[in-house]
Amino acid sequence: MSLKGFKFSVVEAAIKKPGRKDLALVFSETPATAAAVFTTNAVKAAPVLLSAGRIAGGKAQALVVNSGNANACTGAQGMADACEISGLLAEGLGIAEELVQVSSTGVIGVPLPMERFKNALPSLIASCGSATLDDLAAAIMTTDTFPKTSVRVGSSGGVGYTVVGTAKGAGMIMPNMATMLSFVMTDAAVAPELIHTVFRQAVDRSFNAITIDGDTSTNDTCLLMANGAAGTPLITLDTPDGDAFAELLDELLLDLARQIVKDGEGATKFVEIRVTGAVSDADAKRAAMAVANSSLVKTAFFGQDANWGRIFAAVGYSGAAVDPDRLALWFDDVCMAKDGIFVGGDAEVRGTEVLQRKEFVVTVDFGLGTGHTTVYTSDLSHEYVSINADYRT
Amino acid sequence: MSLKGFKFSVVEAAIKKPGRKDLALVFSETPATAAAVFTTNAVKAAPVLLSAGRIAGGKAQALVVNSGNANACTGAQGMADACEISGLLAEGLGIAEELVQVSSTGVIGVPLPMERFKNALPSLIASCGSATLDDLAAAIMTTDTFPKTSVRVGSSGGVGYTVVGTAKGAGMIMPNMATMLSFVMTDAAVAPELIHTVFRQAVDRSFNAITIDGDTSTNDTCLLMANGAAGTPLITLDTPDGDAFAELLDELLLDLARQIVKDGEGATKFVEIRVTGAVSDADAKRAAMAVANSSLVKTAFFGQDANWGRIFAAVGYSGAAVDPDRLALWFDDVCMAKDGIFVGGDAEVRGTEVLQRKEFVVTVDFGLGTGHTTVYTSDLSHEYVSINADYRT
Repeated sequence: MSLKGFKFSVVEAAIKKPGRKDLALVFSETPATAAAVFTTNAVKAAPVLLSAGRIAGGKAQALVVNSGNANACTGAQGMADACEISGLLAEGLGIAEELVQVSSTGVIGVPLPMERFKNALPSLIASCGSATLDDLAAAIMTTDTFPKTSVRVGSSGGVGYTVVGTAKGAGMIMPNMATMLSFVMTDAAVAPELIHTVFRQAVDRSFNAITIDGDTSTNDTCLLMANGAAGTPLITLDTPDGDAFAELLDELLLDLARQIVKDGEGATKFVEIRVTGAVSDADAKRAAMAVANSSLVKTAFFGQDANWGRIFAAVGYSGAAVDPDRLALWFDDVCMAKDGIFVGGDAEVRGTEVLQRKEFVVTVDFGLGTGHTTVYTSDLSHEYVSINADYRT
Repeated sequence: MSLKGFKFSVVEAAIKKPGRKDLALVFSETPATAAAVFTTNAVKAAPVLLSAGRIAGGKAQALVVNSGNANACTGAQGMADACEISGLLAEGLGIAEELVQVSSTGVIGVPLPMERFKNALPSLIASCGSATLDDLAAAIMTTDTFPKTSVRVGSSGGVGYTVVGTAKGAGMIMPNMATMLSFVMTDAAVAPELIHTVFRQAVDRSFNAITIDGDTSTNDTCLLMANGAAGTPLITLDTPDGDAFAELLDELLLDLARQIVKDGEGATKFVEIRVTGAVSDADAKRAAMAVANSSLVKTAFFGQDANWGRIFAAVGYSGAAVDPDRLALWFDDVCMAKDGIFVGGDAEVRGTEVLQRKEFVVTVDFGLGTGHTTVYTSDLSHEYVSINADYRT
């Protein structure tokens, strides 16, 4: 990784099961221009409340993140704990406390094991620079089965720069509340107004296309830091270089989001849901999310059952404007239904073949307008129930 | 069953698997005062469209209902089929076609096997009166594991009357789209305005407390017929007898709704979710439904994991006004959290004991106002996935 001016470290603080790195540090040699998108859940974890207040200043230099404990529903003690950790880290790194972002993921409602944190922080700081992006990705995992990273390179004014990102899967993403964390670092110099504009958009097209706005966990966080260490000129809004940066960021977040879905708890399928011809984009998203979230649709995917009727039913209750007699549906390129009804012929056989693939696209056309969207989901398997039934044990 | 003036019959029309009765008739000797509540899904099955138009007249004399095929997403052919069936039935029974209600449940998107219907209708009509309420309940089952019936008796002006009801489970009720059918018959004479007022209320407190308004299947139907054959005086609104009838109806529908939840696909737990202290009843219902629908909460119930934090997280994204620092939570009488945080002590052990029961109550108090509600749900088990993955095979 050629990312300049950022250093990572990871340690085992015994917050999670033994043998797992569970505490990580991201440190920028200089204060970075930063922005973050946090959960919209009314019940916010202490680190989210703390970090959201600080990021408003537009700068961050360090991130401390733990897995194994969400520090959510922990009241005043939880906030005091998050503050104490960030204070100790700022002191150890010799930076202002306001430049420290704190993030947590794991079980809700259990106070942080502060002694273990305090014991681990010195070695976390001392080893700063010793870890790779993959190490960071592994340290933030909870029920994820593989670490998620993505890297892109660009250039501005003849100077190359790198954007790296990591994310932790939100277990089974689609229903509710699974925590999604993503941290993106770039050594490009990026104007704050560009970051603010394009970062939110990129999050909407990626992470918000796999989780529902408002149906978020107590801890969801997506953080971007740009420190300029590559020596690029300042990349600004409404310029070709700004557009190129925005495109890179889009690609990188979408790559991470797709990895999260592929690692959905117990997932055996990766399904892209495309809705076209809706009255509006908002209607298209409403319908696509209803389909992507339907337990009945998702179990049919798992069972490789070309049950297109369940998809129409989900569209019907989504709240989107719909004319049942105009609906059409495809599994990949196999048209299953037109004008609201089954097309007949060998569609059943061919549709079932599509559903036997590991990845496929479901397209629903409303035949009403130009509204469209794409969202990503997985199937619902036995394994999902197993994982979540005994998550805490 | 002492219900007067109603006759039932059931036959095997080979719509479902062999050996299962799948076509049923309810016939009232005289036209009954009737009302119905149908799905709010924008994609409505043909029988729903047909029956909704007819019930507006306030009268019904016969109901023909099949399981095994929903006659949904079947277009103009589906409507023609539903009309043809009701026409044949009306002719056979010698009643007006407008007095026939048609109802279907089963797989979506497959045309009705009309030849089998036509072959079966003569014996269905000929055997009218030969079936019991239990037979009717069994004939409308899809993935239900037991028939659901409820009977209540009342009196008005010294004359006894009976109310009977049956329902079919909506498989796993809580997520989406599972079809719920319920048919209620009484030999009391009930004024139309009383029926219209109390029936909708009773449905809201029972079936709508186990499914979400708007997240309904293509076929959901709840039908009430009152034929007056018991010879009671006309029971009217805002009278003691009217109130007593309303109470009976409430009890009966709630009994049926609870049976549906208990028979939730793969369910091993029956959970009552009570929300108190919300800003409004609507907010309380929003929060209770978010909890009852959360896959993560429901898998924790299955795993007997006292994971109260997931419940607070669901409350947080429900959209209800919430102050996280005022939330409190009980599993039965065991307080798990107060002022938004874990109470400590032996609550974990005692809470886990509660979750090992087959039935328990989860109470969430918001500490904000007087809004309250109660909803009913089940857990999410391996079995649910099995049942729905291969529903059509």
